[in-house]
Amino acid sequence: MNAQALVVLSGGQDSTTCLYWALDKFGSNAVEAITFDYGQRHRVELGCAARVAEFAGVSHKVMPIDTFAALGGNALTDRNIGVQKEVDLETGLPNTFVPGRNIVFLTFAAAYAWQRNIEHLVTGVAQTDYSGYPDCRQETIEALQLTIRLGMASNVVIHTPLMSLSKKETVLLARDLGALEAMALTHTCYDGRRPPCGECPACELRARGFNEAGIEDPLLAISA
Amino acid sequence: MNAQALVVLSGGQDSTTCLYWALDKFGSNAVEAITFDYGQRHRVELGCAARVAEFAGVSHKVMPIDTFAALGGNALTDRNIGVQKEVDLETGLPNTFVPGRNIVFLTFAAAYAWQRNIEHLVTGVAQTDYSGYPDCRQETIEALQLTIRLGMASNVVIHTPLMSLSKKETVLLARDLGALEAMALTHTCYDGRRPPCGECPACELRARGFNEAGIEDPLLAISA
Repeated sequence: MNAQALVVLSGGQDSTTCLYWALDKFGSNAVEAITFDYGQRHRVELGCAARVAEFAGVSHKVMPIDTFAALGGNALTDRNIGVQKEVDLETGLPNTFVPGRNIVFLTFAAAYAWQRNIEHLVTGVAQTDYSGYPDCRQETIEALQLTIRLGMASNVVIHTPLMSLSKKETVLLARDLGALEAMALTHTCYDGRRPPCGECPACELRARGFNEAGIEDPLLAISA
Repeated sequence: MNAQALVVLSGGQDSTTCLYWALDKFGSNAVEAITFDYGQRHRVELGCAARVAEFAGVSHKVMPIDTFAALGGNALTDRNIGVQKEVDLETGLPNTFVPGRNIVFLTFAAAYAWQRNIEHLVTGVAQTDYSGYPDCRQETIEALQLTIRLGMASNVVIHTPLMSLSKKETVLLARDLGALEAMALTHTCYDGRRPPCGECPACELRARGFNEAGIEDPLLAISA
């Protein structure tokens, strides 16, 4: 059977939850995953994505993007810039913001899907309770969906199951979808540490979500 | 002075015309150019872009994109696929269509511009008299402009000076802007030949434009 849905899988908590959401919605033989190797500081997530995909039994493609490292200028793809918790006063954004990242990820995912006649893309972006990245907002994704439909003459649908969920609600959704076991294989830390550093903005956000949901993070249980 | 405009310069006839359009509109010290090295069959255009930029006296950046070659499946970035003149019956598009190409180019150009506080992007896409690429249409560019504005929290403007011009009108515009001399440095051929092969769809289109404008293509004069 031809796959129906392609999940953008980073190897983190949110995209892993989305993978299980897609398996639930489209069926266990109808989902594939794609991961981007874009020179990210937290490269350990590439291995996590492969292990999550294997654990979930879905086909997995790693696609290179060398452009973000060439662009530099942000803390995720430029080794000379450290992760700061505060927003940059000039841009009003955290210095982990990689301009264009989600637009490019979803466009390349759409190109890969276009070649394979897959119409459904699934991404873990969310506008609530997150780092304030403008490319994670609902209106950005809607505009991008229209752009890709027009630019590829396709009927692509971009699904964002976590868009309006808090981190707590995302954890509860993962539990309901049976995704908690896979969470032990995921990765979140901006500094690329596993076990997690527990201090960077991404680790803090993850910890808060599990705490508020009253569920122990399986990643911590494994590491302990 | 900070640059005001960034031109996506492929090294071909259209983007070179756009470079001169930008110099005319924004001034000779306010324009920069960016070129993408995306594994294109016609790699000779990278050298052409550098020579055109140098001739025009503008700062020039070459940015790598390794993803399209990894995606493959089209005649421009996959060495195993030859250029066909006929459209593919399944997709209704020529097999030189690289899905997502202009969306990705303009998004990366916007990211580079975002880092440098440049608000104006200029691209040579056109919806008339061209190869029927859906990502060259006005409505695609308008949707993309909105996507980038939302996704980068910016006021970017994407200028498409050739959007509604025929190839003949583009040649006449180039003449009026004083860009004809630079045309001898440009490149168009899909097969990467210089002098041009004269037979591929891109060469035929270029020749027709100059013929209808009643102007000799400076590239042919140089080659003869």
